[in-house]
Amino acid sequence: MGYRVAILGATGAVGTEFLELLRERSFPVRELRLLASSRSAGKKIRFGDREVTVEECTEGSFDGVDLVLSSASKSVSKRFAPVAAAAGALVVDNTSCFRMAADVPLVVPEVNAEAVKTHKGIIANPNCSTIIMALPLYPLHKAFGVRRVHVATYQAASGAGLTAMRELREETAAILEGRSYRRSVIPHQYAFNLFIHNSPLLDNGYVEEEMKMINETRKIFSEPDFLVNAVCVRVPVLRAHSEALNVEFERQVRPEEAYEVLRAAKGVEVLEDRDANRWPMPVDASGRDPVYVGRIRRDVSQPNTLDLWIVGDQIRKGAALNAVQIAEVAL
Amino acid sequence: MGYRVAILGATGAVGTEFLELLRERSFPVRELRLLASSRSAGKKIRFGDREVTVEECTEGSFDGVDLVLSSASKSVSKRFAPVAAAAGALVVDNTSCFRMAADVPLVVPEVNAEAVKTHKGIIANPNCSTIIMALPLYPLHKAFGVRRVHVATYQAASGAGLTAMRELREETAAILEGRSYRRSVIPHQYAFNLFIHNSPLLDNGYVEEEMKMINETRKIFSEPDFLVNAVCVRVPVLRAHSEALNVEFERQVRPEEAYEVLRAAKGVEVLEDRDANRWPMPVDASGRDPVYVGRIRRDVSQPNTLDLWIVGDQIRKGAALNAVQIAEVAL
Repeated sequence: MGYRVAILGATGAVGTEFLELLRERSFPVRELRLLASSRSAGKKIRFGDREVTVEECTEGSFDGVDLVLSSASKSVSKRFAPVAAAAGALVVDNTSCFRMAADVPLVVPEVNAEAVKTHKGIIANPNCSTIIMALPLYPLHKAFGVRRVHVATYQAASGAGLTAMRELREETAAILEGRSYRRSVIPHQYAFNLFIHNSPLLDNGYVEEEMKMINETRKIFSEPDFLVNAVCVRVPVLRAHSEALNVEFERQVRPEEAYEVLRAAKGVEVLEDRDANRWPMPVDASGRDPVYVGRIRRDVSQPNTLDLWIVGDQIRKGAALNAVQIAEVAL
Repeated sequence: MGYRVAILGATGAVGTEFLELLRERSFPVRELRLLASSRSAGKKIRFGDREVTVEECTEGSFDGVDLVLSSASKSVSKRFAPVAAAAGALVVDNTSCFRMAADVPLVVPEVNAEAVKTHKGIIANPNCSTIIMALPLYPLHKAFGVRRVHVATYQAASGAGLTAMRELREETAAILEGRSYRRSVIPHQYAFNLFIHNSPLLDNGYVEEEMKMINETRKIFSEPDFLVNAVCVRVPVLRAHSEALNVEFERQVRPEEAYEVLRAAKGVEVLEDRDANRWPMPVDASGRDPVYVGRIRRDVSQPNTLDLWIVGDQIRKGAALNAVQIAEVAL
């Protein structure tokens, strides 16, 4: 009983979290294949009481596989996801490779679970910042009608992978000790510094990460004209993203009404202690499933507008958890 | 020749920078008094070729003083600034104590230098985040007419003083080495974490820092109805603040027009390398005078709106430099 599961990119930050989540959620795994590049092949990884050897991913790796949870590079997905789908597997892909493809559903289960039904072998997992924003935004949109969202992000190192997390720690230690340090993944000093998200710059002056937040939100909400503006910034935090949302509604919404909707929303948790002036922080969200929301207040500069502060684990709900939830819905 | 200058709060982050700036700018200092709490009294500090002993600040400390550069606590300013003004000194005060008082000018020299003329002994230096925002915002407002600004800040530890900077370094080292650490200044984990600015929460759901940005900007611009919204966040950066500005204008403004205005603006420097996807960062601004601006782009979600990314040294233009410039204009 159970599924034959392959994890592509098994040794990365999200790959490792896939394993943790399959175990935690008692996902029915009959057989487990761990796939990675030749560099990681031969490595042994524990899964419950089994020990699984990492194999190099090849065209033949997907024979007899039911589910592929994929979080390698975009180019690896481009090459292997269609192969796996053709071999009969369902691929839940965490890269941006297929997200905007018309025949590939892009799914946040709390928002558009029904979209999985239309899949043709591949379902795309959205960008981490997009998922984290969508969770509180969608129920508010359903309840009150959102006219426009402006978001400024505070993104953690984990979004750039395990090596970026290691670089942040190593560079920080080096700076504290007055040593020099040579980075290989992150293009700028990261320790005690921050920078605009280093995804490619597009012609309209946005970086790719920002346009992902805009375009993917539209696709997930099935609203091609939904108005979003995003500024994406990497901050020296390890694994949870924070986002400052300024949300203009179609009508006046009292903060209490928004709290009420979010208290009932799936995947969201209101976390705040107003008396203690205490709001969600990355350390609260790290390693946790919910997207934490707090500090909902009226924008003093504009009618019908609320500010929200949200924090979610980039590796969990921002990536691995959402992908596993998609698989649970789809299978 | 020159002025008899007293520095109140001489051993703090801003106090130390006052000394550096007086020297750097060849400010005509005839006599120098370094004032602090009894705790720091007796400490010796170098100023050029002199060595000055820190004295405990008392009611008598200001006799014969022409200029007081003050950056102690709000309660110290409340007690001593009126005493110093009554003794005939000009007090440039860096705390929030007098900023909103009707008879105290609040000055950013590049914006409202003429306001110094109305002083009655005390001139207030604005909040650091406010100064940094005002520098690029005001020339844009004069040129094109700003309808509304929404700002999200990424504020450095220096805003909470030298001890906060030390705590950030020490706590970070402790976490990297797996040791526990006991904070005394910052209320939350700061290493690899971030949090909403820990100034007091007000009834409208804003923290004091945010309302400073709103109310002080209105006073500096002499526009009591100027529309500003602010979200203030402390990030684990040492001494420069970053701010993501979303600026709606009265009419359509092309990014090139905004660049042109900012290239000619005093105190502002455009810093970017579009081909290298390289924008201002805290490490660029640390220890430097200008507020760096870059990454001006059209907001895809709203007409007549531009996004700007700005970074300025919190201790320099955000505090000490602006105060010294006020003194230069006023004396």
